[in-house]
Formats: sequence, structure tokens, C-alpha cells
Amino acid sequence: MKRLFLAPDRALPADPGTRALAREILDHTEGLPLVCLHGHVDPAILADNQPFPDPASLLVTPDHYLTRMLRSAGVPLSALGVESRDGTPTETDPRQVWRRFCAHWHLFRGTPTRFWLEHELALVFGVREAPSADSADRIYEEISARLAEPGFRPRALFERFHIEVLATTDSPLSDLAAHARLAAEGWGEKVIPTFRPDSLLHLDHPGWAAEVDQLAKLTSIDTGDYRGYLAALRQRRQDFIAAGALATDHGHQSPDTTPLPESAAARIYAAARAGEVSAGEAAAFAAHMLHEMARMSCEDGLVMQLHPGVLRNHHTGAYRRYGPDRGYDIPVPADFVRGLRPLLESFGDSSALRLVVFTVDEDTYTRELAPLAGVYPALLLGAPWWFLDSPEGMRRFREAVTETAGFYNTAGFVDDTRAFASIPARHDLARRIDAGYLARLVAEHRLDLAEAVETAVDLAYHIPKRAYARRRGESSG
Amino acid sequence: MKRLFLAPDRALPADPGTRALAREILDHTEGLPLVCLHGHVDPAILADNQPFPDPASLLVTPDHYLTRMLRSAGVPLSALGVESRDGTPTETDPRQVWRRFCAHWHLFRGTPTRFWLEHELALVFGVREAPSADSADRIYEEISARLAEPGFRPRALFERFHIEVLATTDSPLSDLAAHARLAAEGWGEKVIPTFRPDSLLHLDHPGWAAEVDQLAKLTSIDTGDYRGYLAALRQRRQDFIAAGALATDHGHQSPDTTPLPESAAARIYAAARAGEVSAGEAAAFAAHMLHEMARMSCEDGLVMQLHPGVLRNHHTGAYRRYGPDRGYDIPVPADFVRGLRPLLESFGDSSALRLVVFTVDEDTYTRELAPLAGVYPALLLGAPWWFLDSPEGMRRFREAVTETAGFYNTAGFVDDTRAFASIPARHDLARRIDAGYLARLVAEHRLDLAEAVETAVDLAYHIPKRAYARRRGESSG
Amino acid sequence: MKRLFLAPDRALPADPGTRALAREILDHTEGLPLVCLHGHVDPAILADNQPFPDPASLLVTPDHYLTRMLRSAGVPLSALGVESRDGTPTETDPRQVWRRFCAHWHLFRGTPTRFWLEHELALVFGVREAPSADSADRIYEEISARLAEPGFRPRALFERFHIEVLATTDSPLSDLAAHARLAAEGWGEKVIPTFRPDSLLHLDHPGWAAEVDQLAKLTSIDTGDYRGYLAALRQRRQDFIAAGALATDHGHQSPDTTPLPESAAARIYAAARAGEVSAGEAAAFAAHMLHEMARMSCEDGLVMQLHPGVLRNHHTGAYRRYGPDRGYDIPVPADFVRGLRPLLESFGDSSALRLVVFTVDEDTYTRELAPLAGVYPALLLGAPWWFLDSPEGMRRFREAVTETAGFYNTAGFVDDTRAFASIPARHDLARRIDAGYLARLVAEHRLDLAEAVETAVDLAYHIPKRAYARRRGESSG
Repeated sequence: MKRLFLAPDRALPADPGTRALAREILDHTEGLPLVCLHGHVDPAILADNQPFPDPASLLVTPDHYLTRMLRSAGVPLSALGVESRDGTPTETDPRQVWRRFCAHWHLFRGTPTRFWLEHELALVFGVREAPSADSADRIYEEISARLAEPGFRPRALFERFHIEVLATTDSPLSDLAAHARLAAEGWGEKVIPTFRPDSLLHLDHPGWAAEVDQLAKLTSIDTGDYRGYLAALRQRRQDFIAAGALATDHGHQSPDTTPLPESAAARIYAAARAGEVSAGEAAAFAAHMLHEMARMSCEDGLVMQLHPGVLRNHHTGAYRRYGPDRGYDIPVPADFVRGLRPLLESFGDSSALRLVVFTVDEDTYTRELAPLAGVYPALLLGAPWWFLDSPEGMRRFREAVTETAGFYNTAGFVDDTRAFASIPARHDLARRIDAGYLARLVAEHRLDLAEAVETAVDLAYHIPKRAYARRRGESSG
Repeated sequence: MKRLFLAPDRALPADPGTRALAREILDHTEGLPLVCLHGHVDPAILADNQPFPDPASLLVTPDHYLTRMLRSAGVPLSALGVESRDGTPTETDPRQVWRRFCAHWHLFRGTPTRFWLEHELALVFGVREAPSADSADRIYEEISARLAEPGFRPRALFERFHIEVLATTDSPLSDLAAHARLAAEGWGEKVIPTFRPDSLLHLDHPGWAAEVDQLAKLTSIDTGDYRGYLAALRQRRQDFIAAGALATDHGHQSPDTTPLPESAAARIYAAARAGEVSAGEAAAFAAHMLHEMARMSCEDGLVMQLHPGVLRNHHTGAYRRYGPDRGYDIPVPADFVRGLRPLLESFGDSSALRLVVFTVDEDTYTRELAPLAGVYPALLLGAPWWFLDSPEGMRRFREAVTETAGFYNTAGFVDDTRAFASIPARHDLARRIDAGYLARLVAEHRLDLAEAVETAVDLAYHIPKRAYARRRGESSG
Repeated sequence: MKRLFLAPDRALPADPGTRALAREILDHTEGLPLVCLHGHVDPAILADNQPFPDPASLLVTPDHYLTRMLRSAGVPLSALGVESRDGTPTETDPRQVWRRFCAHWHLFRGTPTRFWLEHELALVFGVREAPSADSADRIYEEISARLAEPGFRPRALFERFHIEVLATTDSPLSDLAAHARLAAEGWGEKVIPTFRPDSLLHLDHPGWAAEVDQLAKLTSIDTGDYRGYLAALRQRRQDFIAAGALATDHGHQSPDTTPLPESAAARIYAAARAGEVSAGEAAAFAAHMLHEMARMSCEDGLVMQLHPGVLRNHHTGAYRRYGPDRGYDIPVPADFVRGLRPLLESFGDSSALRLVVFTVDEDTYTRELAPLAGVYPALLLGAPWWFLDSPEGMRRFREAVTETAGFYNTAGFVDDTRAFASIPARHDLARRIDAGYLARLVAEHRLDLAEAVETAVDLAYHIPKRAYARRRGESSG
């Protein structure tokens, strides 16, 4: 049996002097509440507050970080419990799924998934041995026993995790029922929705027409023309604000934000309603709508989040069989400088806007994003996203952007996860990496310790709270 | 009051063994004169040798590194004393500007601006407390008192800074009067001009026609046709050489150097004179003229500097209000491999040419620039430029380019600053980062200490002197 | 005289604690045999087993890493013994070539060439002083004396280097005679060929028509039409397999793998036979043939290696004078995400394929290649290639790709060299860098020491052996 042990100084720098400084900085952030203002946890989990069913469906099957890595080693997704759309038989025994995962534990060496899972196993579930083919069943039993206890229901874990606020990401057509239930039970300020209208803004999205009809029904506003469509979007934003939302979220492939003349937008919208829109028109309209979303954010104060540069569903066959979000979304270059220019020229100087931009292309750190954030007041840099939410990834982010944009043009850490039990691990890792980076600045006499501590606390707590605080409608130039 | 203290080992590596080696290497370069062969100090400052007026107009208002960071936090440029072109009222009290800067000191944590300013405040002006809202007035008084002393006039500082030579960057239409005054007082070899003909080479530059007329007047050469234009440029290069110039400087957006047939160049030139040039023709002509500039450098021996890949004036509104060089210049990708190819095929093997190329796109370090510099004798890599002139930026530059291009295909440090008082700080930081990098090579037994010391001295002194030494007209193949 | 001394801890991390761990890890890999499954050693050297003629023609003239660096300092290639095609007189005295190299030893400071050469001089030849103008002749004599000894013949060195298997890279038209001679003497499993059909797949390659005729002759298959061409390629692959080949190798400029309809491929092939193919058609055909090569790999089990993104022969004049592979091949960006997509959609899920992809563009590590390798079972990441086969380059590779793709989606180290005597140095350096990276993971409590040791052994030995093991024809989905 191989012991699972979380070293207190894990993920801190190796140099003893720097580590001691990092330890001292971390002492000031380890106890802070978790501010989780961007993520993908299903709010129904917290509204229902039912026990999680089993270790595999909690920790393995829904986490595409895990399943894609096992896929890369030849394990079919169906063998991990991922449901197919084409009748491929799917593993239904969670214990088999769990065994397959444990048997491939070595694949995760050197990955953040390993760090997160060790944290979850040891600190959330009290597991004391490392996963392996041999230990799989024992660990399965142990976690299963925990999951049956009241202290492991979602809300109990939420409190134990010391989460101050958790933002979910919601369909623009959501009735926000789970959030309403949570609010009715006094959890309305703890769990808040985020408005993600991607499917409504992409005219060539399959099902767009039906969704726009549903938008009309939900808002009682006729979406037959472009004006009604805008009004209905405005209304839905208000519904989300009423339910506590602080932000919108936008997952366009391109960061283009070029506005169209209103007449052109109206014409393209009409064409889409008639089912006659071209790919070029749809792309132009999506870019235009990012510009409109920024305008609405200036009006209603929702923070705008944008994360472009990903080619979704790279493997068409896997998409047809297993659907989206299975690990086949691959980053591609994106031109932030020219793409964001129209939006920033229109609203980048306004104190009414907060635009948080995420990237999965490290090239853009020093070349594009830090220079832009280092001059435009409305622009903040989002935390290193997705594949970059890792020890080396987060370290490189700080090393690359801080020198041009400083710490205070970033938006703080967001965990961005759908794996509820991994939330504390992700914040813990981010705080450790920031402590290590700041410790090096202190060790190299580029910052003094008191400033480093203050900065660490700001990064972990105050900066994300300020970044996602809702703007009022004023503007300055 | 928070003390301002410059640690002797600032910006050296944290690991004690490596730091001791770095310290030993730095001991050999700290005393070397400063060779400043590319920068933007106004020569009139040294020619006039008047006292600097006040702390804000010396250290804050003209430095776009500072003003852009304050802008990103919401402070309007006008509140920092930056003059507007559109009647926006501008702060006229330098003390208010200084206070705004000091109150935002925390924004500069982790930036090179912080490093430079601490150096200037402590070592140039003897300030002993850190800037803050509270200390702003005390520091203002202290610097003001210093600025009134004879020892703080420009030439006295120049001597105290141990500057051996300072190159300015000058309009191709400059009468070089400040340089002439300096020469008349024995400062001609200490302060030299650089020929920067960008505005004459871009046919769509606003005011191009008027500038070409002025070029004719200055040189008494008719610039009515392309031949005359080339002759007048050659003449101006001679004027600069006579005034001590060692180099030209070229700030094109694209690194394209494709030559045109002479007839095509003449035809486009004629179209531009007639006010009928297209954007495509102007771009082709600018590329052609880089090729011609290289040819002229082979003839007259001026070193050619090129720094492409920046989209100038990203925010049109800010440009209209405040003009250029306000922090809104943002890097964009540039294709050095295909862009420089025609120039390198024509002149890259010639010992008569030295082409120093700067980039703000770190991608190109290992992919493009180091491989090119590692084979073409004429090509040298310029120091990490602009946003990359920072501890991590300079470290990454060495780590990326040295393995392919070595140390001796680089051109040494250039401070590239318009902030006169920051010159020693910038050279100091570069020497510290190089000492740290070389110390790591020694600590890892990849270089011995004697070689590291020799290399450090070369990088700080001999390499830039050799790089910018004027070529004679010979060529080899 | 300056001593040449190889520190036992060279290229290990400077931090003492991390170094001790790295040392412990390295102790487990230093003695492992060398698995050399991709390289450019001429098999005739081992088949003939004659003494190497002299130090310059062994170590300097054929190594473009060395000659390009000397070229960048102004030394003509002809002065280094590189033969010209245009009558430029070439240095014929190897001692003069050697002297020129030694006099420029300082150029290699901080480069991997320096590391490799020190290893070769000290450990292969027993040289005890560093190269310099002064020591050149003494070292020349010393190496010359060694080369005359029986223990320095190629096969003796092969054994002493502890090489388990060495793959060469061979023309698709090779008669594989050297390999046959080696096989006849019991060396058939030690030295194996690799099938590199680039010249046959690029219809616009000079001499393509003649090569396709020769292909027909060699295989006795009529290559007059596309079907025959495919059959002949299949036959040649079988010939290589019979001679021990495990892999193919593909050096296309673009990673495009878009298949053509068979009729279109046949039509373009016919056009090429008629001498009427366009550049666009040739590029489309080359992309199509990568897709076909993957199909054939699924059939016959040869591992497929692809290394795109290099613009060959950047300097046309130098190419005309000195031919290819002289240091004028420069990396350019390549779009792996869209380029590899068709091939991966067709075969990326198949256990019958192993596709090893190399890059010289570090941007693509975290943005493209690690995410692709982290989900597609058929795809493995090749070792950092060419300019990136260096201490910092290999370290950045591990830091960038491991967090997304893990260790087990990489293909292990390949030395990729034509410099036979440098093989042990290259493997030694790779093992040191991996030991240092793994040691840091241990020091930062991100991996335990036993796992690190196991991973190091896997990377040095088991992973490349598994990666290049031939697939059988099965497939899974």
C-alpha cells in the first residue's frame, strides 16, 4: 500500500529561503474564504442537496480532464461511464469505472489533476492511500461510506469548503428555478447565476431558431425582429440580475467585436429568422453582439467575461458519439489586438464596464493582453484558463503579465470547474503558486514582505471581489 | 513612513550559491561606463543644460510606462499633466500630478518601472522613503531641492551616471542644432544623433508630402522624383554621419523587406507626389525602402536598426486627444522569416552591414530570430525591447536565444528610454539579470566563472560598442 | 592551458536540495542503454567500420550546428571544408578547419553544442584541455592519435556508447545495401533503417519524375498511374520492414493532412507525370499523402513521424553554393490543430497507429500539441526538436507539455543527430534535464521520489521503446 500524504509545503518553491517566505505569505491567505465567481457547478446539486451517488459519478465520469487523459491511453469514454448518443454500450457499474481510473493513476504524474485529486482524496474524504489497481476497491468503499454521511451532502461541503459565493454558468433560457429554490432557503447570495448567451448570439448554432422562440416566450417580448431580440436579451439580463447574477460569460471562437450598422444587424437577423444566414454573416453578427453585450454591460453593470480561441469538438466522430465537453476542444490562435479594438475604442475607457478576458494561448500574455490591460481601465486579465490552470501555467502567467500589467489589472483566481469537490484544491493551488511567485520577488528584493502579503491577500480575495462587483451606469473618458 | 532601501543583491537569483556567483560576476560590470547607443533623450536637454523644472515633469508626465499604468487604474492622462489637443483641461500643478502618482505606487509592484524608480529615487536623488499618498509632498520637496543644485543639471548627471556615449533618435529633417551646440562645447562624441527616416519612407504618413519638400530644402536636392528622393536621403545620412551618427532606426509595422524594381518604386513615388497612392502601394514602398536602407548602410557604414510588429495608436479617441506615444501602442505578430528574407539574401552575408533587429513578440525568439542570427553574419539580435525590458523579460530572452544564437550574435543592452534619469537604473538592471543568468550557467557547470565574467563584461560594454561600430564599405560572401 | 573538466553534476539544478534529488534520479538512468530511434547517422559508416579520417571531418565539417555558428561570425563555409557546387575553392587541410573552429570556441558559450563537444572531447577522446587558438594543434594531434586506434572505429564506439539500437534515416529509393551488410554480420537488429519518402510525396520536388521512375524499377511496379504509385510505396515500406525498419519520417513544411477524393489524387498524379502540376496541387497532394501514409501505417504497423514547420534553404545563394542542410533552414509557424485534424479524425482513435509529432515552434506546446496528445490515443509528442534539443529547450518542453499531456503521451528522447560521436552526449544531457525536472517535482512535493525514478527510467528507455514498437493491424474506436 502506497501512502497518500499531502506535504504542507507542496507546490511551494524548492529553494529553502524562498520557501520560507512563501510559507509566511501563504499563512495569510490559507484561511481566507473562497470567492468562486466563475464556474460550472450545477446549481441543482446545491438546491437538491442530495447525497452524491458514488465515487465514479462524482469524481471521474463528468470531469473531462480525467476522461480525456484516460482516452489518450486508449480507454474508450464509454468504459468510463460517459453516455453515448449512438447506442454504444456504456459502462453502468461505477466500481468498474473507478477501477479503470485508479489503474491509470500514473498517467496524471506532473499534472494539476493529480494535485487536485490528491487534495480531494486526502482532505475532503480522508483517504490515506494512493490510487492504484490494488487500492481501487478499498478507496471506493471509503469514499462511498463518506458520501452517505450528512456532512458530505453538497451544502455541508459548501460550508466546510469555506465558500463565500459560488457563481454557476446558466443557459440564457434557464428558468433559474434552482437558484430560486436556493434563494427561498437563504442561499441566494451564496449561489448566483451567470448569464451565458452564446447559443442565442450565434445565428448558425443548431437550434438557434427554436431558442429565440423560447426567448420570446420566457420574456413575453416578440423576437421576430432584431429590436425585439435585443429587448428580450436586455430583459433576460434583468432576470439574471434579479436572481443575483454579477456577470455574463461569452465563449466565442473569435475575439472579434466589430459592430455592424443597426440596419445591417437587423437585416442579418431577419435572414437568420428566415433560415438563410451564411457562415460569414453569422460570424459578423456574433462579433457585433459582443459589442452590444458590452454596451448592455455599461447600462446594467454586469461584468463581461470573454474566453475566445478554442476550436470546439475537434473530433467529429467523438462529438457525434459523446456530445460536447469531452476533451476534444483544442485552442487555436486568436487576434486579441485587432479583435477587441472596436469594443475597447467604444467602451474601454468607461468606468461602467469591466471586461475580463481569458486566453488559452500563452503567446498573447506579453504580446497582446498585458499591454492592453496595462492601459485600458475597463480591461482585466482573467486567470490562466483551462489547460493553463496548473502550477507551471499559473507561474508563467504571473511572470509574463505582471511586469507589464501589474497585479491590479488582473481579475483574481476563478476555479472554472464543474467538479464541485475540486474547488478547495484549485484555490489552494492558486494561492500556493501566487505565494511562491511573490516570495521570489521578495527573495530577489523586488518587493518587501509586507507588500507581498498584502498582494497575496488581494489576489486571493479582494481583487476577484472587486473585479466582479457590479458597475453602476456612469462613464468617464 | 516606509523606508526605501536598495538591497545590494536586488534582482539577483534567490538561490544562495547562484547569488554568490552572480555577485562575483556583477562586481566586474558594475563599474563599467554606460554605453547608450539607442534611446530617446531629447538632445536639447543636454545642449541647454538647464535645471529640470520639477519632479512630475521629469519623472511622471513624459514617461508612458507610468502614465499608461495610472490610466489603466482609471486616472485620466490629463490629470497627469499630459497635454491634450482637443481642449480637455490639463492638470497644471506638478505637485498634484506627483501626488496622484505616489498614491498609486502599489500598481507598480512587480514591474520594472518600480525597480527603475526606486533606483532613481534612492541613488540619484537620495530619497529614503517609499512613495505613498502620505509621503508624496515630502518626496516632492526633497527632489525639488536637489533639482535646484548644480550637481543635478543634465550634464552633471551625465558625468555622474558614467555615460560614455548617448545616442539620441532624431527626425530625418532635424537641423541637428542641439548636436552642433554640444559638439561646439566638446560633447560631440558623447551625444550623437540617430537617423530615423520612418516618416519619409511611409508614403501614407500624414504630412509626407510636406516633409519631402522640406527634405529637398534641407539638402538642396530636388525630391520631385524617386532618384532625387534617394539622393536626398543619402545626403541626409551623410549629414548625420558628419554629426557623429552611428546608426539608423526603423519603426515599420511589418518587417517586410521585399525590393521593388526601380521603375515600380519610381512610379509609386510619383503617384504619392500626386497624392494618389494606395495603402498597398505605400506598404510595398516602405518594404522596398528597408531594402534600400540596407543597401545604403553597406555603402556608408551606418548600423541599421529595425523594430517592427507594433500596432500604433490602438485607441483612436485617445490618439486624437493626446497624440502618439501614450501607451496605446500594442504589439502584433510579425513574420520575420519571410519578411527579412529578401534583405538577408541581398546583404545578410556582407561584412559591410550590421542589422540589429528588435522584437516585442517572444514567440519569435527561438522560432525565428535566434535561428536567423545564428547563421547570417550581418544580423544581430537587439536587446529585449519595450515591454520585455524587465527582469523576467530579459531572463527569458537570454534563456531563449542563447542556446541557438550564443551571446555574440546579440547587440548588447540598449536602454531605449526617453527618461534621462532612468538610464543608470536600466543598465544596472540589465547587468544584474545577465549576471544572474551567467551565474546559473556556472552553477550548473555549463560555463566556468572566468568565462562568465568575460561574457558579462562583453555584454555590458564590448558587444554594444562593437555592434554599433560603423562598418566600412567592404563585402564578403 | 585551460583545463577541460566535466563536472559530475553538470546540467543539474543549482539549488542544493533539488540537485541531490536529481543526482539520485540520474543514478538510475545513467547506466541504461541508449535507444536511438530517430537519427541521421550514415549506415555505411557502421557497415564499412573504417577509421574516421581526422578530427575536422568527424566533428566540424558535417555538423551544421557548428558551421552555421561560425558562419554567423563571418567565417565562410568553404573555409570550414564544406564543399561548394559552384567552384568556390574549399579548404582542404583539415588542420586549418580545426584551427578555425577552436579559435571561435567562445561563440558556443551557453549553447548545447558546447555541452556536447565538451562531452565528446573529454569522455570519448580523453582530451583534457579546452579548445582555443593555442590548444588547437595539440587537441588535433590527440584526437588523430585516438582515431587511429582500433577502439575508435565506428562499431567499437557503438558498443562503448552502449547503444542498443540505432535508426538511420534513408532515402525511399535506397537499396539498403549498408543495412544488408550489417545484417549479414549480425548487426541487423542494432542498426535499422527509417523510411523517409518526402521526395516522392512532393510532386514539385526537383527530380520527382526521375525518382518515381526509379521507384518503379526498384519495385517492379508500374508507377505510371496513381494506383501503381501507391502500390510501389506499399512495396517499399515492406522492403524497409524486412530490413528492420520501425518507422517512417516525414518532413513536410505544412502539417496539413487533408485527404483528396481518390479521383482527384489520381488526376493530380497524372498531371505531375505530364509535368503540369501547380504548386497548389502539389501541396494538396502532399497533404493527401500524409493521410495515406497514416492509412498505410495502420496496415503495416510502421510508426509515423512528422516534423513540419520549417522553411528550408532560406538563403537561395547559399543553397546554390553549398546545397541543403547548411544551417539555413528556419522555423515558421504551423497550424497543427487544423492541419492534423483530418488524419486524427480518420485514424487518431486507432490503436493501429502511432503518430509522433515534432515541432520547432514552442507556441504550439500548450496551445496545440499537448491538448491534442492529451486526448487522441494515436498521437505522441516527439522530443523537443533541433534548436530546442538543449538544456533550456528541453526543460521548457517538460514544463509546458507535462501538465496537459503527462509524461506518457510523449515519445521519449531521440537524438536526431548526424554526428555519431555526439550520441552519448545528447542522451546524457536529456537524462540530466529530465532528472532535474523530476527532482523539482519531488522537491515541490508534486511527485514522490520512487515515482520520479520510475518515470525517469521510462522516459530514458521504456517510453521510446514502446513508442517505436511496431503496431499490429488492429483498430479500436
